[in-house]
Amino acid sequence: MTDPNLYDTITAIAKRRGYYWPSYEIYGGLSGYVTYGDLGTKLKRNIERTWRNHFTRQQNILEIEAPIINPETIFEASGHITNFKEYSSECTSCGHSFRADHLIEDKTDLENVEAMGGDAIKRLLVEHKVKCPRCGSPLKEPTLILTMFKTQIGATGSLTGYARPEAAQSMFINFKRGYQHAREKLPFALAQVGKVMRNEISPRRGLTRTREFTIMELELFFDPQKPECPWLKEVEDEEIRLITEELLADDERTPLELTIGEAVEKGLILQPWSAYYMGVSKQFITHLGVPHDHQRFRAHLPDERAHYSAQTYDHEVQLSHGWLEVAGHAYRTDYDLKSHQKGADTDMTVLREDGTRFTPHVVEPSFGLGRQFYTALEHAYERRDKRNILHLPRDLAPYQLSIFPLVTKDGLREKAQEVHAALKKSGFTTFYDDRGSVGRRYARSDEAGTPLAVTIDYATLDDKTVTIRDRDSWTQVRTPIKDLASNLQSYFSNTAQFEDLGQPLKS
Amino acid sequence: MTDPNLYDTITAIAKRRGYYWPSYEIYGGLSGYVTYGDLGTKLKRNIERTWRNHFTRQQNILEIEAPIINPETIFEASGHITNFKEYSSECTSCGHSFRADHLIEDKTDLENVEAMGGDAIKRLLVEHKVKCPRCGSPLKEPTLILTMFKTQIGATGSLTGYARPEAAQSMFINFKRGYQHAREKLPFALAQVGKVMRNEISPRRGLTRTREFTIMELELFFDPQKPECPWLKEVEDEEIRLITEELLADDERTPLELTIGEAVEKGLILQPWSAYYMGVSKQFITHLGVPHDHQRFRAHLPDERAHYSAQTYDHEVQLSHGWLEVAGHAYRTDYDLKSHQKGADTDMTVLREDGTRFTPHVVEPSFGLGRQFYTALEHAYERRDKRNILHLPRDLAPYQLSIFPLVTKDGLREKAQEVHAALKKSGFTTFYDDRGSVGRRYARSDEAGTPLAVTIDYATLDDKTVTIRDRDSWTQVRTPIKDLASNLQSYFSNTAQFEDLGQPLKS
Repeated sequence: MTDPNLYDTITAIAKRRGYYWPSYEIYGGLSGYVTYGDLGTKLKRNIERTWRNHFTRQQNILEIEAPIINPETIFEASGHITNFKEYSSECTSCGHSFRADHLIEDKTDLENVEAMGGDAIKRLLVEHKVKCPRCGSPLKEPTLILTMFKTQIGATGSLTGYARPEAAQSMFINFKRGYQHAREKLPFALAQVGKVMRNEISPRRGLTRTREFTIMELELFFDPQKPECPWLKEVEDEEIRLITEELLADDERTPLELTIGEAVEKGLILQPWSAYYMGVSKQFITHLGVPHDHQRFRAHLPDERAHYSAQTYDHEVQLSHGWLEVAGHAYRTDYDLKSHQKGADTDMTVLREDGTRFTPHVVEPSFGLGRQFYTALEHAYERRDKRNILHLPRDLAPYQLSIFPLVTKDGLREKAQEVHAALKKSGFTTFYDDRGSVGRRYARSDEAGTPLAVTIDYATLDDKTVTIRDRDSWTQVRTPIKDLASNLQSYFSNTAQFEDLGQPLKS
Repeated sequence: MTDPNLYDTITAIAKRRGYYWPSYEIYGGLSGYVTYGDLGTKLKRNIERTWRNHFTRQQNILEIEAPIINPETIFEASGHITNFKEYSSECTSCGHSFRADHLIEDKTDLENVEAMGGDAIKRLLVEHKVKCPRCGSPLKEPTLILTMFKTQIGATGSLTGYARPEAAQSMFINFKRGYQHAREKLPFALAQVGKVMRNEISPRRGLTRTREFTIMELELFFDPQKPECPWLKEVEDEEIRLITEELLADDERTPLELTIGEAVEKGLILQPWSAYYMGVSKQFITHLGVPHDHQRFRAHLPDERAHYSAQTYDHEVQLSHGWLEVAGHAYRTDYDLKSHQKGADTDMTVLREDGTRFTPHVVEPSFGLGRQFYTALEHAYERRDKRNILHLPRDLAPYQLSIFPLVTKDGLREKAQEVHAALKKSGFTTFYDDRGSVGRRYARSDEAGTPLAVTIDYATLDDKTVTIRDRDSWTQVRTPIKDLASNLQSYFSNTAQFEDLGQPLKS
């Protein structure tokens, strides 16, 4: 994690093995777009499944899938047309545009320049004599630019639409139907895993800031008079590192170390529902392979928060190039439902048992998947004996098993293909490989993050056993073919460890 | 299947239970957009998984995930800017636009008017005196309209982009990287499951023609000098119903009944690779619950085929309102790779062992998921004793199990919640329900398509057994709680039938 070149190493492995690469390569590339390859689509799907297991496991969490293109009226009501903007500076000479706050951050030690507001950004550009990073020419005064993709709905261009920059609005506009499917009971949540698009002024390194990405978002609706979360006890002992608004105001970055339960008790997290999801968030990011001391929750200062938020904590992870936000936990109050109540002229209130009507409040955990994806790769990486290993958790790895014949002659290839077919039929995600030496195949398998390799050798033909090799320890065990599927099933359901898979073998 | 109101019935169930509904309801709706609810996202995901199991099970089928927004240059090279157009007629009075070919089809008995070309469409509109279906006023002469969503990439609007109307182009432009990951060997395929957008002039009923949908597409690259498909034998005995170009030319709609193997032998399917995927397609659509005689493959006549195709068969299913295309099987030759070779000025050829270079040929099976989704629902539907039942295959149903306490008192609710939690922990997709009478809960469970319902009653407290009820036969068995998880596992992995789940019980 201290390797300054780690980002480049991961990017090179990702491209070589097929995790991801820049899109439109043959057309010269286009910044802000990545394409996931075979290993990437599998890892991505496994991360989505893991997120669902953590965030939608409770009854009354309803998943939806809504369109990406929304008519303009949705974003007028939500406030995006007014607020989803960034300061852009155009070069007077080469004509390129840049995010003004990023230019200042790159030139100074300042952080979160965006939060300082437009006047400060304009002043700082002048004060620090910021020039065009491409050609060195002076920049024009920055202007606010709407960073959503605009289009026309209807082939004859009758209605303006925008690609959604978040999935949340579709949860709000479908609140009433969700409430019906939740049997008109609060609390309930609508969740969504889907594509969003942000027309970034200056997209950044790899998966960190792309123009299209998968978001995993959940809106939990509750009665503000009954803010208790019945599931909080499941995560109240989860230890977190918290940088509160108070610490930030004192310019203090050393986090408090405490449990979710304590943070609620001390009033540092306003809503028990937010606290619950922050606890689940800690568990989820830990599941991806990130240790406790590489995680923290950082509060947003009031002027940094989105227009709808009463409290926001960013979940950040430490990467080789610094701390990165991988999730946001916002307490959105009743802002959104009230906005659409006005925008659509539709009643969004619900009835309490005592006959009073109210607008539900909302907490939102929101995850941009590309960042978790990169985080999982970087935290899985180890360089050992001039080899690259990705220690991905066994339930996240794109392929579970590599299957090799020791050599391709004397019937070993056929035997290996037979074992491969049987394991595949048992439901394992398998990769058969008989190209090059076994050593090189192990190396490729380790770099692809495949947890186990099964090798068929001459002894297999005699005694019907195979070798299983562990990606992490490079140790081996010997196992009868007849036990293979059931042993591997135990391993991948986490009820057995590698040592339980067979008889130890000196490697 | 003969119920003329079946479409409306399915739509009503879909909305009530949360399969899908029209998007933007509170804003008055917007044609061409649907939102999937909780049951819908689960069914949709199960269909995607089933497609992957059928179409990507072979080694060297690499999945990718590429961006939705593509720069204009991609679609210039691919021919879409020139060809992805429809004839649109605008009303002289109310200003609404309509697809000219659909207007003619609605007014006449003609089919596939699109294929007749622009001159015929213009002539037929006049001949049949077609008027605006909204206000009855005359229509303007139709014009060709590009039906892709246009936008600007870069917040300062520097580059024109379009939302992709198919996923295929990303497979072609990533061919070289795919070839590298496939270890520079043919045949290999790139597959993709992802969103596409078509800016339809007049979107049609429900899921049939939407402006955004998930496509499941695969491009198989092969050497035209070695057109053999090594996997063909796996499907050669699959029986299909085939309407060939020859039959169509004779205006004959009765399909030939033959096997995939026979169709190749007789030269009715040009490429063995197409034949293989048509066989897999038959198995996939059958898996969704569509019987043999409700399926057929219909050839495209030469003037109906897309600009890149040498032969195309549509896979069609019979629905209550007629035959619907659910998949297309196109032999795209080397059209696409050659187009991008020219467009990107990049070599797309590969080397044969004999030292000659060539451009690979491509066959493509392509599936618009919304149509399979609707097909699965309609074919699952039965009305029995004034109840709606969705007989969805057990591996497609959104929820596997409903869990009920007979009543909510005397500790039965707590016992039911305990059983529910245990089954959930064992990995089952479960729905706990204790609202209203057991009869109504069974009815809701049947309408949601849930295969099994587990009921906890007074006897459970005595003898630790529960009742399992079959959605399809409404029969019941009695099973000890200790055997429940393993019995259900066998049932959902298709190694046990309902009768094997316990002791028969008189219902």
